Amino acid sequence: MNFDFSLAEQAMFKDILDKMNAFAQGKNFETQDFSRAKDALAILGKTQYLKLGLDTPEGFGGVSLMGAMETLAALSPSLYLSVEMSTRLFGGIVATWGSSAQKEKWLPSLMKGQILGAVALSEDSMNVDYDPLKTSGIQDGEYLNISGDKTYVINGPVADLLAVAGLLNGRIALFIIEQGTVGLAAGQPFSTLGYEGAAISRVSLNNCRIPVDQVIVPFEDRSVLDTLRLWENQIILGASLGLMKAAYESARDYAKTHRSGGKPIIAYQEVAFKLSEMLTLLQTSQLFAYRTAWTLETSPKAAESLMWCAKVFCTEAAEKVSGYSLQILAGSGFISGNPSEIAYRCAKYGQIAGTSTEISRVKIGDSALGYRLIA
Amino acid sequence: MNFDFSLAEQAMFKDILDKMNAFAQGKNFETQDFSRAKDALAILGKTQYLKLGLDTPEGFGGVSLMGAMETLAALSPSLYLSVEMSTRLFGGIVATWGSSAQKEKWLPSLMKGQILGAVALSEDSMNVDYDPLKTSGIQDGEYLNISGDKTYVINGPVADLLAVAGLLNGRIALFIIEQGTVGLAAGQPFSTLGYEGAAISRVSLNNCRIPVDQVIVPFEDRSVLDTLRLWENQIILGASLGLMKAAYESARDYAKTHRSGGKPIIAYQEVAFKLSEMLTLLQTSQLFAYRTAWTLETSPKAAESLMWCAKVFCTEAAEKVSGYSLQILAGSGFISGNPSEIAYRCAKYGQIAGTSTEISRVKIGDSALGYRLIA
Amino acid sequence: MNFDFSLAEQAMFKDILDKMNAFAQGKNFETQDFSRAKDALAILGKTQYLKLGLDTPEGFGGVSLMGAMETLAALSPSLYLSVEMSTRLFGGIVATWGSSAQKEKWLPSLMKGQILGAVALSEDSMNVDYDPLKTSGIQDGEYLNISGDKTYVINGPVADLLAVAGLLNGRIALFIIEQGTVGLAAGQPFSTLGYEGAAISRVSLNNCRIPVDQVIVPFEDRSVLDTLRLWENQIILGASLGLMKAAYESARDYAKTHRSGGKPIIAYQEVAFKLSEMLTLLQTSQLFAYRTAWTLETSPKAAESLMWCAKVFCTEAAEKVSGYSLQILAGSGFISGNPSEIAYRCAKYGQIAGTSTEISRVKIGDSALGYRLIA
Amino acid sequence: MNFDFSLAEQAMFKDILDKMNAFAQGKNFETQDFSRAKDALAILGKTQYLKLGLDTPEGFGGVSLMGAMETLAALSPSLYLSVEMSTRLFGGIVATWGSSAQKEKWLPSLMKGQILGAVALSEDSMNVDYDPLKTSGIQDGEYLNISGDKTYVINGPVADLLAVAGLLNGRIALFIIEQGTVGLAAGQPFSTLGYEGAAISRVSLNNCRIPVDQVIVPFEDRSVLDTLRLWENQIILGASLGLMKAAYESARDYAKTHRSGGKPIIAYQEVAFKLSEMLTLLQTSQLFAYRTAWTLETSPKAAESLMWCAKVFCTEAAEKVSGYSLQILAGSGFISGNPSEIAYRCAKYGQIAGTSTEISRVKIGDSALGYRLIA
Repeated sequence: MNFDFSLAEQAMFKDILDKMNAFAQGKNFETQDFSRAKDALAILGKTQYLKLGLDTPEGFGGVSLMGAMETLAALSPSLYLSVEMSTRLFGGIVATWGSSAQKEKWLPSLMKGQILGAVALSEDSMNVDYDPLKTSGIQDGEYLNISGDKTYVINGPVADLLAVAGLLNGRIALFIIEQGTVGLAAGQPFSTLGYEGAAISRVSLNNCRIPVDQVIVPFEDRSVLDTLRLWENQIILGASLGLMKAAYESARDYAKTHRSGGKPIIAYQEVAFKLSEMLTLLQTSQLFAYRTAWTLETSPKAAESLMWCAKVFCTEAAEKVSGYSLQILAGSGFISGNPSEIAYRCAKYGQIAGTSTEISRVKIGDSALGYRLIA
Repeated sequence: MNFDFSLAEQAMFKDILDKMNAFAQGKNFETQDFSRAKDALAILGKTQYLKLGLDTPEGFGGVSLMGAMETLAALSPSLYLSVEMSTRLFGGIVATWGSSAQKEKWLPSLMKGQILGAVALSEDSMNVDYDPLKTSGIQDGEYLNISGDKTYVINGPVADLLAVAGLLNGRIALFIIEQGTVGLAAGQPFSTLGYEGAAISRVSLNNCRIPVDQVIVPFEDRSVLDTLRLWENQIILGASLGLMKAAYESARDYAKTHRSGGKPIIAYQEVAFKLSEMLTLLQTSQLFAYRTAWTLETSPKAAESLMWCAKVFCTEAAEKVSGYSLQILAGSGFISGNPSEIAYRCAKYGQIAGTSTEISRVKIGDSALGYRLIA
Repeated sequence: MNFDFSLAEQAMFKDILDKMNAFAQGKNFETQDFSRAKDALAILGKTQYLKLGLDTPEGFGGVSLMGAMETLAALSPSLYLSVEMSTRLFGGIVATWGSSAQKEKWLPSLMKGQILGAVALSEDSMNVDYDPLKTSGIQDGEYLNISGDKTYVINGPVADLLAVAGLLNGRIALFIIEQGTVGLAAGQPFSTLGYEGAAISRVSLNNCRIPVDQVIVPFEDRSVLDTLRLWENQIILGASLGLMKAAYESARDYAKTHRSGGKPIIAYQEVAFKLSEMLTLLQTSQLFAYRTAWTLETSPKAAESLMWCAKVFCTEAAEKVSGYSLQILAGSGFISGNPSEIAYRCAKYGQIAGTSTEISRVKIGDSALGYRLIA
Repeated sequence: MNFDFSLAEQAMFKDILDKMNAFAQGKNFETQDFSRAKDALAILGKTQYLKLGLDTPEGFGGVSLMGAMETLAALSPSLYLSVEMSTRLFGGIVATWGSSAQKEKWLPSLMKGQILGAVALSEDSMNVDYDPLKTSGIQDGEYLNISGDKTYVINGPVADLLAVAGLLNGRIALFIIEQGTVGLAAGQPFSTLGYEGAAISRVSLNNCRIPVDQVIVPFEDRSVLDTLRLWENQIILGASLGLMKAAYESARDYAKTHRSGGKPIIAYQEVAFKLSEMLTLLQTSQLFAYRTAWTLETSPKAAESLMWCAKVFCTEAAEKVSGYSLQILAGSGFISGNPSEIAYRCAKYGQIAGTSTEISRVKIGDSALGYRLIA
């Protein structure tokens, strides 16, 4: 076993951090100003961040990606979510199932950070696990007409390209639709508990006409949805690590620099206990997430159940750590815009998005009970 | 033992609920529009709500007040907080320590809901437990000049009267200052994680001149602060019950009326389990809070340590219940403005305001370990 | 509302405590010596303990019983379990469903503590909820022949009378069988994690012949089993309070009287925190259990779901409190026979006996979600 | 990063498992029969188990040891504890601080499993952290006379050699005393909550006379005690993994093979949920423990604080997992001697032995808050 990031990985993280910090200059990206996702993409296009998972550079892998995700998510959860939905989810679709022509057309711009993608999946509720898709495409010569309604589309109003899941001749297909296509309408961005800096909206499609070469061809079964969920879960895992890291460091620094009753807050045992529990949760979550990313590469079959376990664990840890962090900051934590408050608002999302905590538990119960993490 | 509310109590709760519902008409009071606190006060002035604890009507007591608090807090946490800071905190100061003249001057209008009060206590941090007050008054003939800086003053920018804690000749006194007094300045209302509909701001006092009959005369020791903390804790206890009630009912109703995979959500065991845990926490918290209110009246000495226990328990329960509620509502819970999201945002406040969870634990440890709840 | 025990109740508790302490003289009753249950019964026959619930004296009720249970269980969990299985379970069967003749025959001796009863319910597993009974009786003139196998019968080897649940003409009946009846055989008492002082064994019945007047006549449906479960749950509730009380007091006293590093252990904040959490759990559990007992009398319909909530809460609390208690006692807690170690061993039983925690959660989910504790 | 055990490590685990299974043949080693520790040592002497950490074979390291510990502890916690106290604690003392002559004299027999060692550390309480040692040695020519009283000495009555911590000229030294030395007396083995198969007793030394070459020479400061604690913590970490593994597998197998209401128990969601939480805790604990073992080798400075975090996490996980396991087994889990009941009894020891959970939290708070697990 070996638990260290390589020097190349550490250098990559530092590069991301430096360039993004220069861009951010301490600004709060967690408000409803949606122009910043594209600016951030342009910056990240100069690092290796956007290549990971799509055309992974030599010497990197899934664990490198998880470490990079943690780095960005700690900086701004909203930018992170926007970027990941474009890169790892939309980009992953193109890289995995796209035709050669589709890959050539879209992947280079995605990896340079020149276009922003979105994926429109959920309909009636956030989870599609139990319900059939109602969105569908009808062929009309060299074109398809797509109609349907999607809820909770991240990047919905600002994406250049949307991958829309729907039925084509009774089977699931993914339709790539350009922003501006007649019949495509994104709703008003929702005001949300967290991730307010990521544009999340409904998207309605009313006979959106696209050429047939903008379809990712129909899938044999629903397993494509499982794969998309797996990627979403991976994104949420990275987010959880970043939220915890930001919240933990914020509370630790506050406790070291603020005083009460003549001594630094960290000298109060009740504060030190909370920090030590936060640290333990952060460390354990990191290990679990890295382990999961590693297994995704080395034995993908085993990884699905591991991912559910990791997602349940890390998202609950993120809620706890950010909540404790707020308590340490006390009054100043309750004021909007500090890293702990931002993390606390975002943490709950991780438990309901992707495979929800409840459904994850059912799935682990159903299928995973024969599996052992360490061979 | 007897665990029922009397018929008179039940009628009082219904009266509050009916009048407030007619006033609210489903509006969201959790946004930064601060005119509504006074409108709500006027409505509540027509019920017995504002009399409880100040000039308690025959047949009612502390448990009646706790039940009434729960009723209002479930309706709107922000209005509840504004009203309580005026009635039970500011009003409590006047009723407990005010001179006859002061009582006559202010109590009737407070109980009719004609004036809104505020109490300015905390300075450097939210908790004053470990730090001396810096605000002070200097006598100048028949007048006092008050200077100091207060953080986190609820109703700060909108109150008609502020009770400001400070030092007078080295001892703690409470200065009653009218809005508009020269030198009194409330800061911009904070944007906060929760309770956004309650105006919370800094308040600075720069040689505010008040006549000496607007002082609540100096106290022998710091125990007045303990009493104010106790009242704050009581207010937070009521808030916790209301938040849990609103969140629990919101999730239960959603689970009964929304379907997934062909059956109502409540039919999924993972959902039913969460609801059953939420119900248990709500019930237990109610019992604990009523018990505490009852002890406050029957054996006040024992009540302080019981209050710390109850506050720790009920505020943690409120966070759990509202968090679970959000998870049941999934995507729709994450959108701002629903009762579960509102409750989740507010719940954390209860753990840091009043005697914080951490300090409560220390205090229970210090002093209460000889006490047994049921004689 | 009123949360106090009456003076008569307090006097009754004191009487039980005094008489039992005089009997116990500090002996450890948690080892496999089963003669003591009958000695204890004789002592308790001189108090009002054995009358509660069977022929409740004026001025007492369900809450009095719960308080009395807590008192005895804190003294010796094993004796408590033996006595309760005889009095409230076996005795409850006779008092509720017995004929006048049966009541006359058995109740007076039960209430005087002259005979020890047992109830044989479970067969394949500890919970009968999902499985049909295999034990059955076949009529033969004025007699019945009973055959079947029972697991986990408390008092099995030492009871004078056993009430055995089985089928008679396809419906559930309760057969009262005397110790010594041909064909009745109790197995070797189990060695168990906890409650080692209560004789728990298998009981097999091989054509046990009893006169027909020793049958409690067949029931319309399985609801009799629900009632028996409810009583078992009530017994476990009382046990949980007693375990917590004993464990909490043991840890508190240890922490006050033992020193480390020059100061009493209680002066270490990590110890004081644990004690304060234990106290809160004990207090909350008491309230919940008393509330449940009160509801059982005042609105029995509502009480069933409340009982499940209370049982889940109080049995988990008992495990936590006794576990924390052990940690405070450290090495000396790990040595067998101290109150904390005894409580920790017994606590887990409460979660699996009666309606198990898992099944309770299902039942709350199924049926109880419309109920509100405080009217 | 790399999370796999090597083929050599896997082969080593299998060898231990096969040889020990052949020896154990399903016998219960958790009762007070203390001859078996030496038999087990003899078996293990034929594997590489006893060399790890003392004269580690090429290709193995700290993580290999942790995996081997988990394997043995899952088989029998009591044998494991006896063996480890001899090998890693007593043996570690000789290998680390012994003179060349001492190493030559004792290490080969230890690694062949021919002698059993013990370490006598604690005096008044289980934790020596806050209290000075009272045991001391007085030089008398070529001899030393050792006197003192030790509590909780594992292997105390059965060890061939005891390493006794005490003061020599005001500094801490370790005295190696042979069983049978005049003045050395081990008390009656304690009856304990768990680990009953390991002989734990008091040891008293009354002018035990040993030659000076049986002293491990005095240490500069108390840091030797920290190192011993670290090793104890490592042993407890391995125990926790083994307990969890045994309990989890026992519950999983039971749930698959037992039926209720016409279906296997595992088909009940409440059971499957518990199993999935147990699996997650086991997996996470494994990762944390391996990570800690790895850090102990690669950057020992950082490892101490990591060890405290890991110990708190893994020992609490062991209590939860074994407790849940018992609940799944229900009645049959409560009967003594099954793997779940054994694990539950032993788990609590991990929280109080070594650096206790409470003191670990203090220490993490004190010193470790600047540390980040993954560089």
